[in-house]
Amino acid sequence: MEILNDVDGMRLALDWAARGLYTTTPNPHIGCVIVRDGQVIGAGVTQPAGQNHAEIEALADARARGHDVRGATAYVTLEPCNHHGRTPPCSDALVRAGLGRVVAAMLDPNPLVAGQGLAKLESAGIAVTTGILADEAYELNIGFFSRMQRGKPWARMKTAASLDGMTALHNGQSQWITGPEARADGHAWRARACAILTGIGTVKADDPQLTVRGIDTPRQPRRIVVDSRLDISLDARVLAGGGTWIVAAVPHPEKEAQLRALGAEVIMLPNAAGKVDLAALMLELGRRQINELHVEAGAKLNGSLIREGCVDELLVYLAPTLLGDAQGMFALPALTELEHKVALHFHQVRQIGQDVRILARFMPQH
Amino acid sequence: MEILNDVDGMRLALDWAARGLYTTTPNPHIGCVIVRDGQVIGAGVTQPAGQNHAEIEALADARARGHDVRGATAYVTLEPCNHHGRTPPCSDALVRAGLGRVVAAMLDPNPLVAGQGLAKLESAGIAVTTGILADEAYELNIGFFSRMQRGKPWARMKTAASLDGMTALHNGQSQWITGPEARADGHAWRARACAILTGIGTVKADDPQLTVRGIDTPRQPRRIVVDSRLDISLDARVLAGGGTWIVAAVPHPEKEAQLRALGAEVIMLPNAAGKVDLAALMLELGRRQINELHVEAGAKLNGSLIREGCVDELLVYLAPTLLGDAQGMFALPALTELEHKVALHFHQVRQIGQDVRILARFMPQH
Repeated sequence: MEILNDVDGMRLALDWAARGLYTTTPNPHIGCVIVRDGQVIGAGVTQPAGQNHAEIEALADARARGHDVRGATAYVTLEPCNHHGRTPPCSDALVRAGLGRVVAAMLDPNPLVAGQGLAKLESAGIAVTTGILADEAYELNIGFFSRMQRGKPWARMKTAASLDGMTALHNGQSQWITGPEARADGHAWRARACAILTGIGTVKADDPQLTVRGIDTPRQPRRIVVDSRLDISLDARVLAGGGTWIVAAVPHPEKEAQLRALGAEVIMLPNAAGKVDLAALMLELGRRQINELHVEAGAKLNGSLIREGCVDELLVYLAPTLLGDAQGMFALPALTELEHKVALHFHQVRQIGQDVRILARFMPQH
Repeated sequence: MEILNDVDGMRLALDWAARGLYTTTPNPHIGCVIVRDGQVIGAGVTQPAGQNHAEIEALADARARGHDVRGATAYVTLEPCNHHGRTPPCSDALVRAGLGRVVAAMLDPNPLVAGQGLAKLESAGIAVTTGILADEAYELNIGFFSRMQRGKPWARMKTAASLDGMTALHNGQSQWITGPEARADGHAWRARACAILTGIGTVKADDPQLTVRGIDTPRQPRRIVVDSRLDISLDARVLAGGGTWIVAAVPHPEKEAQLRALGAEVIMLPNAAGKVDLAALMLELGRRQINELHVEAGAKLNGSLIREGCVDELLVYLAPTLLGDAQGMFALPALTELEHKVALHFHQVRQIGQDVRILARFMPQH
């Protein structure tokens, strides 16, 4: 593959970044490609936390293949780091390697570090370009950036409904409204999330496993259940295998001990009304290094999360069917003025098999 | 413009056909382009009923421009007619003109005439090809074909809703959920219909004019109100200008006389329950030469029309907003089994301004 220009180079670096979609968290998924005379001489992706960043991987790849990287150009999907974390700064490694030019898709969005990595490179005489395919680079790590900038995850709420907006019959039947392609697509979105959150209502009604299935991934997202009064059955499938976080508001020492014995952790986050403080939960999940949070809950918890400003994006699958009088997507109160409606914008609309997938984002004022 | 192959020629003929979208009914909108040596030497579109068909227009255009059509190829979006209606058969005119070849997008779907026009041409030694861009040609006249084949219009039900499927607040507020581009698009769909149908509930709640606005069209579609008990106010804007059809089930001689005095026509079509017989109404509209019927009604009439199998297609605009507890699109009864859900397929999905437009068709078994 010949790299004819910076967009080509960055496109390939983004492809490498995407290989880390299911593995690099809590670190971002970054790709790096090293190019000389239009030829790719090294490439890499962030390794699981504590191991190499993408730039180090790409330099090692080039050396392993016998290439001299001096004077070459590195394409990297985020500004190289300039700090000592669990690994030394990538900016130093790039300088030491003698690269001629570094192209970064975007600056580090963390205002405390933005620009420092590139400044280090420039001061060492390396030519620097930034802002190539920045939107794509941002989307790939939207959860990491959310956590860095806001201290909370990017919360994506998934729902599957009929064209008339219904998710289940009144008797609870909901499997399957959408087709197999949409269901597989939904599992891919689960797989890239750090955690999947649901409510006790869904656990009682559907007893979901809340796992990723049908996607080749080395790690399962954390499972989280909002369950104010610790009503969850000890047989619930979401507890199987341990590691589940149960978020509650009313202490119940005996039940908490039983849950802990099953490998679950109970997080007490009551609000003044004796329910789970959902906004506080988002900040707690940020502290616990959850980048992308995938929400699959019922209309009631969905509505509460939306009302409390905890949701950034709706991932809506609409199936080519009508259900009529049934259960809706989000329990939101009636309005008296249209101008008070929730404002979204449609970020992306796509047909997935027989269904339509709409990614709708809440407008910033939300 | 050079015509390099049959698809080019038919594409241009379809462009000409589309020029008749608002004018040719009850006749279909047909385009004809005559090509010699890759050059277009004549073109035409069906004129309003009783006047020239597209083929005659294209032949006259070629002659007026001083071209000899002998041996040329005619592209026509429907098999040329072979019968005497208000005008003589086009097949005869094409034979007399000495064309060398005729390419028809599709056969006449009326089984009583299908193939006869082309057979006449072939027997006169004209080369014939068919099946070029047939789907596009069918879509352009879907209402005409529906009436010819089923004796009833193609019924397209338009609704505008929030992403969560709500069309209006409980207090009736619904202006405007969708954006200006979607509203303009909705008027273009109205303009191509032969008639616009609504119910007395919508007339009472919104007092709509039910006219085409913002589209340059020489004719307004017929306005139809389903109003079982003739509850309509004589001041209703839908009656302004006359010509409105009021479909009722309960006779009311005095009100009927008042409506007739306003230029309206009252059509009595009761069913056994004392409501309007909607299936019978569709057949009556077919007899009255309505090709495409555009339905813009409330959830109740929408639901009745769907339940009685009167709707062929849903034209749904979804706006990037949530309305929560509000009025839905279609009043349909609750199901107890998901397998009884209404089966649609998404024919087309497109972003229109800030909104999404979904054309969903009922599956044939409906």
